[in-house]
Amino acid sequence: MSTPYTLLESRFARIADLDHARGILHWDMETMMPDGAAPHRGEAMATLGVIRHEILTDPALGEAVAAAEADPDRAGVDGAPLDAWQRANLVEIGRVRRHATAVPADLVAAQTRAAAKCQHAWRDARARSDFEGLRPLLEEVLRLTREEAAAKAEALDLSPYDALLDQYEPGGRSARIDTLFEDLAAFLPDTIEAAIARQAAEPEPVALPGPFPVDVQERLGRELIGIVGFDRHHGRLDVSTHPFCGGADGDVRITTRYDEADFTSALMGMLHETGHALYEQGRPEPWLRQPVGAARGMTLHESQSLLIEMQAGRSRPFLRYLAPRAAAAFGGTGPAWTADNLYRLATRVARGFIRVDADEVTYPAHVILRYRLERAMLAGDLALADLPAAWDERMRELLGITPPDQARGCLQDIHWPSGAIGYFPTYTLGALAAAQLFAAAREAIGDLDDRLAAGDFGPLVAWLRRHVHARASATSTDRILEDATGAPLGTAVYKQHIRARYLDA
Amino acid sequence: MSTPYTLLESRFARIADLDHARGILHWDMETMMPDGAAPHRGEAMATLGVIRHEILTDPALGEAVAAAEADPDRAGVDGAPLDAWQRANLVEIGRVRRHATAVPADLVAAQTRAAAKCQHAWRDARARSDFEGLRPLLEEVLRLTREEAAAKAEALDLSPYDALLDQYEPGGRSARIDTLFEDLAAFLPDTIEAAIARQAAEPEPVALPGPFPVDVQERLGRELIGIVGFDRHHGRLDVSTHPFCGGADGDVRITTRYDEADFTSALMGMLHETGHALYEQGRPEPWLRQPVGAARGMTLHESQSLLIEMQAGRSRPFLRYLAPRAAAAFGGTGPAWTADNLYRLATRVARGFIRVDADEVTYPAHVILRYRLERAMLAGDLALADLPAAWDERMRELLGITPPDQARGCLQDIHWPSGAIGYFPTYTLGALAAAQLFAAAREAIGDLDDRLAAGDFGPLVAWLRRHVHARASATSTDRILEDATGAPLGTAVYKQHIRARYLDA
Repeated sequence: MSTPYTLLESRFARIADLDHARGILHWDMETMMPDGAAPHRGEAMATLGVIRHEILTDPALGEAVAAAEADPDRAGVDGAPLDAWQRANLVEIGRVRRHATAVPADLVAAQTRAAAKCQHAWRDARARSDFEGLRPLLEEVLRLTREEAAAKAEALDLSPYDALLDQYEPGGRSARIDTLFEDLAAFLPDTIEAAIARQAAEPEPVALPGPFPVDVQERLGRELIGIVGFDRHHGRLDVSTHPFCGGADGDVRITTRYDEADFTSALMGMLHETGHALYEQGRPEPWLRQPVGAARGMTLHESQSLLIEMQAGRSRPFLRYLAPRAAAAFGGTGPAWTADNLYRLATRVARGFIRVDADEVTYPAHVILRYRLERAMLAGDLALADLPAAWDERMRELLGITPPDQARGCLQDIHWPSGAIGYFPTYTLGALAAAQLFAAAREAIGDLDDRLAAGDFGPLVAWLRRHVHARASATSTDRILEDATGAPLGTAVYKQHIRARYLDA
Repeated sequence: MSTPYTLLESRFARIADLDHARGILHWDMETMMPDGAAPHRGEAMATLGVIRHEILTDPALGEAVAAAEADPDRAGVDGAPLDAWQRANLVEIGRVRRHATAVPADLVAAQTRAAAKCQHAWRDARARSDFEGLRPLLEEVLRLTREEAAAKAEALDLSPYDALLDQYEPGGRSARIDTLFEDLAAFLPDTIEAAIARQAAEPEPVALPGPFPVDVQERLGRELIGIVGFDRHHGRLDVSTHPFCGGADGDVRITTRYDEADFTSALMGMLHETGHALYEQGRPEPWLRQPVGAARGMTLHESQSLLIEMQAGRSRPFLRYLAPRAAAAFGGTGPAWTADNLYRLATRVARGFIRVDADEVTYPAHVILRYRLERAMLAGDLALADLPAAWDERMRELLGITPPDQARGCLQDIHWPSGAIGYFPTYTLGALAAAQLFAAAREAIGDLDDRLAAGDFGPLVAWLRRHVHARASATSTDRILEDATGAPLGTAVYKQHIRARYLDA
């Protein structure tokens, strides 16, 4: 017998199917699509988004949510009470729906168009380092994002910034981020200075002698992501300009890009995306097509990629495993190919301009800078005309360097041109969570280092499955972290990790 | 101002976007998808199909059709009269809608499920040559197809077979096919006999000495499809088990499969799919997202692939162009690589069991056999239990050979397991149309042979664009053929072509 709750499940299964299509079409766009197909693809993606939005905002759906919420003890099949997962699903459905109904359809459509135009122009603007040329389009995107934030703030009873943040990190609040980031901002400058000084006092690591043929890189990469646990029966590895983890339920697709001069860049990138993929592939099968079955949010998502790449992938034990295999694959011999040298290359600290190239010590500085600027932009405290100067000033404050041009400054990321405000902080929240989770896993798995040195990710991934992946969205990020690590998200373990790896050892 | 007609255009633009997604997802399924993703992909495809069906059968759409049909002189924007293309679009919309509304949604869903199960089982059944094992699933597919045919027959005022045929070949009628096929069935046996005897009297063609590396085949293939006119900015070439032309508006994707022992098989296959692709890529841009902008039907579609592959691709002039290039690509020398030898290989006639491997002389026999059998099955005159024996008997009648097993007999094609009855005849109708169109093009383009010998497909493709592709579904198959060739579809030109190539020359 159909009940309000079962109606919700069937509507959200339909949304899952639309998202399946959107996920594969997006992957295709980045990896396969011929250039001339962009306009048609844009239309198709927009229409799937509109249909999705129509389903979410259908008043009948709202009535079913209200009816199920009013009587959860009889909302199940044949009047049975909802179980814990069904209740959690109902909570998530309410959340997803509140986000969707907060924004009128014509604003969504206007945002899609403005973001598409601005993202397209951004590629040229970045190539020419021309922020002023991009500014009119970016103003429009920002204006619409502020409209969206205001509408969601009203509907969700949050501040405008938190209303946007909540899309990427459900339950995330800027007051908490402020505290964490202030702590990090105080920790970082001296730590960066000390780490660089310490590395400068040691002999330089030996550069790995390339070139490294792409087919060998790919073969080694596939072997490694398989060892880590990527399920190639439910996923693929391909090439794209900007590496990502996407695809669909049961079909998780990661990408990389190969640099013939440096095989570690693609390899570490593959480990990173594999961390994301393990999360997607580890969600509970029966709930994959429902909101409660989704990954919890971007903080935990990024924690999984950083745990596999930064915590495990760049650890001494794993690099002891990797070194002889990489040497054999590329036919390398000599001092460049020792585990110790690979480790020193993989943990090199440097003040740079580009976020995506940053090491794990300087990375939070890039994020804190963006977080503070985007909050000011959204609040109307920073005019776009003043963004380049503000960017450079903060860069000097946090990292002590000045970008030589806007391409390596405020034009480097696609996030703002695409209307994504509230996303950046999750990178660093994820780094904090990764450190905390890895420390807890090491505590739980007595011989974790030996396992990694033997290329055995089994116990680590099983631990992540149980403590993170399998919980999907059945509870909050905080609860997942507390249950797994005994503490809420904080900076302490991350700082210990940075000290241990870069200052003490 | 929105009018009933403009409402129709916007609804069908939405359907075009869903079809875009379906097309790319289907391509992905055949070329890229990891095996474990099949269940989720199946759900996603089914849901997109259901949403499409809901839009088509929405009563509001029916009312808009009726209103626009009632007053076409004022149905356009701001009450303007519909122009010729809009009127043709309205006709097509009515046709598409009649097909959709004729069948209840639960029958469509039951057919989708039954066909998916039967197709899946068919792969194993074929491998084991086990028709009896497949029969229960095939009975169910046939039962549902007969239900569909009855429903459509009622709604369209056609016979059940013609109602199915009309989906693939709008306006196609079995009475006409009977006449054409009887004529061919009388022509073929002696012609096949004579062609084989004639070739037997000549020295055997020299076999091309392989192996032919896949990367060289691909490079040569890409060069050739580019020369023919495939637009790689709006399409791709990939590999799949069963070659096809698919994809989406503005993104036409063809596939091939490589055989290291025989490069001509992939090459001729690529020319074939390029013929399909040229049709898709040549449809009028402003109408791509409307029913009137669709390719007219499978007869003309198949005519385009056969024209490029069989009429042009296997012609002496084109093989004069190809021979030195293929020899250079594969480093071949000697008598095997002359244009004359390639021609004799490309036009070899043999009685075989497998339709997809058949030459153009014996191919119609394979089609006539299937056409007659599927008509009898649909009418209830042939029980599935008797199909294998009936197949073998007709095979002896038409080709004089008996399949050694069911895999090479009635289990060889996926059409019936997938519920496609009424499709087979379009292959041979397409061959007739291809001969007729090519003869007309040669008449119109005085130096066509010289052009093909120079690898210049420009004038031929321009002629096809104007006379076939650009007309899309604005008029009937018959009208397109009569306008282009001066005659309705017939057997005369095809028979001339076969005589000229296989008996006279």
